[in-house]
Amino acid sequence: MPLTQTTRHKLETVSTATITTALFKRGLRRQMIQDVQPLDPAKPTMVGEAFTLRYIPAREDLNPITVFQDRSHPQRKAVEECPPGAVFVIDSRKDARAASAGAILVTRLQMRGAAGIVTDGGFRDSAEIARLDIPAFHHRPSAPTNLTLHQAIDINVPIACGDAPVFPGDVIVGDADGVVVIPAHFADEIAAEAVEMTAFEDFVTEKVKEGRSILGLYPATEERTRTEFAAWRKERGR
Amino acid sequence: MPLTQTTRHKLETVSTATITTALFKRGLRRQMIQDVQPLDPAKPTMVGEAFTLRYIPAREDLNPITVFQDRSHPQRKAVEECPPGAVFVIDSRKDARAASAGAILVTRLQMRGAAGIVTDGGFRDSAEIARLDIPAFHHRPSAPTNLTLHQAIDINVPIACGDAPVFPGDVIVGDADGVVVIPAHFADEIAAEAVEMTAFEDFVTEKVKEGRSILGLYPATEERTRTEFAAWRKERGR
Amino acid sequence: MPLTQTTRHKLETVSTATITTALFKRGLRRQMIQDVQPLDPAKPTMVGEAFTLRYIPAREDLNPITVFQDRSHPQRKAVEECPPGAVFVIDSRKDARAASAGAILVTRLQMRGAAGIVTDGGFRDSAEIARLDIPAFHHRPSAPTNLTLHQAIDINVPIACGDAPVFPGDVIVGDADGVVVIPAHFADEIAAEAVEMTAFEDFVTEKVKEGRSILGLYPATEERTRTEFAAWRKERGR
Amino acid sequence: MPLTQTTRHKLETVSTATITTALFKRGLRRQMIQDVQPLDPAKPTMVGEAFTLRYIPAREDLNPITVFQDRSHPQRKAVEECPPGAVFVIDSRKDARAASAGAILVTRLQMRGAAGIVTDGGFRDSAEIARLDIPAFHHRPSAPTNLTLHQAIDINVPIACGDAPVFPGDVIVGDADGVVVIPAHFADEIAAEAVEMTAFEDFVTEKVKEGRSILGLYPATEERTRTEFAAWRKERGR
Amino acid sequence: MPLTQTTRHKLETVSTATITTALFKRGLRRQMIQDVQPLDPAKPTMVGEAFTLRYIPAREDLNPITVFQDRSHPQRKAVEECPPGAVFVIDSRKDARAASAGAILVTRLQMRGAAGIVTDGGFRDSAEIARLDIPAFHHRPSAPTNLTLHQAIDINVPIACGDAPVFPGDVIVGDADGVVVIPAHFADEIAAEAVEMTAFEDFVTEKVKEGRSILGLYPATEERTRTEFAAWRKERGR
Amino acid sequence: MPLTQTTRHKLETVSTATITTALFKRGLRRQMIQDVQPLDPAKPTMVGEAFTLRYIPAREDLNPITVFQDRSHPQRKAVEECPPGAVFVIDSRKDARAASAGAILVTRLQMRGAAGIVTDGGFRDSAEIARLDIPAFHHRPSAPTNLTLHQAIDINVPIACGDAPVFPGDVIVGDADGVVVIPAHFADEIAAEAVEMTAFEDFVTEKVKEGRSILGLYPATEERTRTEFAAWRKERGR
Repeated sequence: MPLTQTTRHKLETVSTATITTALFKRGLRRQMIQDVQPLDPAKPTMVGEAFTLRYIPAREDLNPITVFQDRSHPQRKAVEECPPGAVFVIDSRKDARAASAGAILVTRLQMRGAAGIVTDGGFRDSAEIARLDIPAFHHRPSAPTNLTLHQAIDINVPIACGDAPVFPGDVIVGDADGVVVIPAHFADEIAAEAVEMTAFEDFVTEKVKEGRSILGLYPATEERTRTEFAAWRKERGR
Repeated sequence: MPLTQTTRHKLETVSTATITTALFKRGLRRQMIQDVQPLDPAKPTMVGEAFTLRYIPAREDLNPITVFQDRSHPQRKAVEECPPGAVFVIDSRKDARAASAGAILVTRLQMRGAAGIVTDGGFRDSAEIARLDIPAFHHRPSAPTNLTLHQAIDINVPIACGDAPVFPGDVIVGDADGVVVIPAHFADEIAAEAVEMTAFEDFVTEKVKEGRSILGLYPATEERTRTEFAAWRKERGR
Repeated sequence: MPLTQTTRHKLETVSTATITTALFKRGLRRQMIQDVQPLDPAKPTMVGEAFTLRYIPAREDLNPITVFQDRSHPQRKAVEECPPGAVFVIDSRKDARAASAGAILVTRLQMRGAAGIVTDGGFRDSAEIARLDIPAFHHRPSAPTNLTLHQAIDINVPIACGDAPVFPGDVIVGDADGVVVIPAHFADEIAAEAVEMTAFEDFVTEKVKEGRSILGLYPATEERTRTEFAAWRKERGR
Repeated sequence: MPLTQTTRHKLETVSTATITTALFKRGLRRQMIQDVQPLDPAKPTMVGEAFTLRYIPAREDLNPITVFQDRSHPQRKAVEECPPGAVFVIDSRKDARAASAGAILVTRLQMRGAAGIVTDGGFRDSAEIARLDIPAFHHRPSAPTNLTLHQAIDINVPIACGDAPVFPGDVIVGDADGVVVIPAHFADEIAAEAVEMTAFEDFVTEKVKEGRSILGLYPATEERTRTEFAAWRKERGR
Repeated sequence: MPLTQTTRHKLETVSTATITTALFKRGLRRQMIQDVQPLDPAKPTMVGEAFTLRYIPAREDLNPITVFQDRSHPQRKAVEECPPGAVFVIDSRKDARAASAGAILVTRLQMRGAAGIVTDGGFRDSAEIARLDIPAFHHRPSAPTNLTLHQAIDINVPIACGDAPVFPGDVIVGDADGVVVIPAHFADEIAAEAVEMTAFEDFVTEKVKEGRSILGLYPATEERTRTEFAAWRKERGR
Repeated sequence: MPLTQTTRHKLETVSTATITTALFKRGLRRQMIQDVQPLDPAKPTMVGEAFTLRYIPAREDLNPITVFQDRSHPQRKAVEECPPGAVFVIDSRKDARAASAGAILVTRLQMRGAAGIVTDGGFRDSAEIARLDIPAFHHRPSAPTNLTLHQAIDINVPIACGDAPVFPGDVIVGDADGVVVIPAHFADEIAAEAVEMTAFEDFVTEKVKEGRSILGLYPATEERTRTEFAAWRKERGR
């Protein structure tokens, strides 16, 4: 169930807040990757299918600096295999004491057309990554090389990230509020519903800015609200 | 003991750091709401009387999305009852895994003339809230709807917020360092003392920038410091 | 083994990320001061020898506001004794619930020529400190006076800061990723190696931006990479 | 919907583990009071309706040692009002740095016929409380008087306890695994179902101890399992 | 490199403390599974090869109570596949808010001859598990069914457990101090060295109980210590 | 101000709970060493003057296994210098991931007549230490050698232990509720007051067990309570 261009574009226009409400209505309450933030909050909304990397704690004898000379080291291999349009999601066990990745790898992902990168740990070279043309989300900056604490062990398997389950192919959306995981088979309907909800929220915001009370307006329990919203949509073609 | 305009204006010119020192002198060491930050650090100092909302953990069967259709739902009711000039303070049990509120409610508070909003959890639509004309403080952004984890249960009762006790009517002050709670009956004297302390701190800063040692200057244990400060105040009319 | 000007200048041109890798190669994995960030991320890289201050929890009877009238109070004494070019490093036991210091003391350190200040707690007057001409790093802003929770007890002894060991004279380097501690006797060789590594990383970044895969390039396992890098260095005089 | 004797007796024979599964089937996933343990694990299962006490952080000026001279102080009043058969549940904001209560108050509750006491903080005199004839659950022992950090503010209102919502009248059950909160209106059906589940689990345990695989047995997906269980029940009169 | 009976028996006579020292000498500092404890501290030392189970956060739609009707559900499958003599090690992401397993599964493991079970989360039915004839280690008791928070996803892959890396086949040893992970290829030499160290520690303990200072004795920097130890070993046949 | 035998004996008969209340009356609210517990809860109350050891994070190059061959290594030196009757208190920065000490050192302290040992980290060989004739308190068991994370750096200086300030010579008291620190100059008056309070608490407990309400009894706001208590004391000679 690959992510369609239509759904991708819809999701680029809605917020993670709206998406979590749509998921909540379907009984999904744990899809937010907890406690990650954008390195550059001014970047546009990130949307893409999850391509995952799993770390375990680094055993010292298996993780000398020389391991990267192996072309098939999972971290490097994953970066070269992440498909264009995908979001690279790393399970760092919420441990930001060493880096999940640095600017060179993130630059490579950008060049390969990845849609973004997320870790529940931290990135090194964080100022440089913030200036790249690819959205990146982490818990906090972290300079130490990933070999200090993280050993890449699995590519594209189901993982935990920030207490959320992430399956390869799930649709990942990120904005200033953080990153949410939409189960792949829900992506189209969530996107459609979120677009509808966003139209209504924009209408409500306008009314509230005009001085209207939220009672009867949000949610639209008064008939008047529903009528006005219908007119508003027509007028704006939304 | 309502907050007077005089005291409000005084408090707008002093820092939370200075206020905590004045409280410390009176034996109050826990009035800082711990670990909250402004969504927009460039906003002017927030001052207002506390109007509180208490959340408890959300029981799933009591918190479907439909609860907001009830006009008397405490969260919505509180927003419509918060007096102009007040600061809306939410006890979210320091749990930022779901939102305490979003942009629409905060916009409504702004329209109703509230002086600010504080939660020891997180706000959704955080980028949008940062751009509103009302100061807002939280622990971190959080997209999931508040129904996910928070059930509004009480309006304007004494609460905990970030490990500080907050009684309705306490005077809340917020700046880049965070948010402090001044017990209502202390507000006038704390404000007066803080204005005095601020004058002295500004004088000291000037002297330190001229190269003076802090010994004898801060605190003013040398006679010379006291004389110079008196002259400085006279000159500047403070 | 004082820090030479040559080494200081070298360290000003490299990142904490590169330094931690050089330390990792020597078996040092815990030299990062964990979870501190610059108050102003735009400041240049901070470099200097550690001058330390140790806090213990404040016993209330020993820490009334009047203690600062004592000219030999360790906090004030330390600020007046910190040598020019040094970084003032405070062991606040990772407790940011009260301030480690405020703008007046940090301004004084700046005037005395200190190279920077670091605490694993928090600073008050954080917005003002961010605007000073001295790099400062902390966990988060914290308004309450340090007497609330911290008693200065020792000057220039070995301390813990953010889970890292800091010995007086160790070389402290800070940038947007945080702060790293280089054992004094390693400073020259780490600086030299980091400069070399930085040249290679700059070369790699350029190549990656041209579309090159990281395999064979980073690390330079292919002969071609080494040849190109040699040419690149020659061309740029690095 | 008061707790009947029948339901109370049923609940005394089942485990909190079985109850949480019954709640899970009804969509309730957060009814466990997290991270509390019995002071005496050998006590029988605790069952009773919740009678609640809410603490907020103690403001120093409102909490001198003399406050207990007030006969209407909420902590003391609550102890004298807690009905026989009820479980006294305290919202201590998961803060065990000061005591929620001590042996004298717990002894008084025992004398008044309370069914137990729970806090998400800690008890002082913990060794003595463990020896009383009333089950008590807390996070860990804590000697400091509750005035140090806790101010009793509300009696018998909905509270948070260990991240679970507790409404007055909810049915509280505690054993070696901890404490679970059954919404009052669910108590009868949960109790009935849990008794059934316990019979089946006892049967399964017997079979597993005889060497049977869990596949087909637990859950009872094989016809044989269901037949054998029916016979087993008949034989034992359960 | 399967665990030999000789090495197993040696490891049963030494402590996790001694083993961690032997690992430390080889540069391995993170092999302790942090913050787990035996449910029954009186059980003999647990020794066996790791057989692993990996959990990720449970997505609600994938984890209804009915999933266990699938005979190939990874949790149930793993229990039926764990080899005799192995230790079943579960990666629960250090999340003890829901159970990792309960008494029925642990009983089945005992019947199948497993050497023990470890989770960095918690077990339900903890009092019952403590009474079984199989050593079990967890962080704390936890009643809620594992479906509440954990979805079994992988059998016998490398995992994280309590911040330690665990590879299938690693040798797991547990006692009152907790659980340590010996990389498989080190097991024989670590066991041999630990037996030697234990003899010396027993000798030292005897001497210290006779009143001897530790200086020169522990470590054996004095010739006298080494001579006496040689005699002691001879006498005791160790 | 050395601890007198009279005061020592008084303190052996009172609880840490009672002592914290006496300290609270004097404005001292942070003297409890937070979150430590006795390895053997059945031991009698521990009383002695603090003799301290300070750890900082272990830098790997300074902490090979060979450091203990140095007779002047601070950890070993401290154990040999701790005076009879003293309590050995270790600042382990609340980090229990590696041991603060093991059974051999604690046995040596017992032989030298120390009154007890406390760390805010953990002990290895915890089962063995529990069986020694010396009270020991820690956060939790921890097998890894202290060199893994702790470097002993200072003997008998003021330290932090479990968020409490500990000065050499302070009087340390430990029981099942944990460990409290009495400033040296307060020890006599606190001991005297605690003995008085204990008599009253014993009286109150007796009355409560007879069925008396706590109102008017505890505190003794009714004249009747005071009269009865006077008679009770006389009768029992307390």
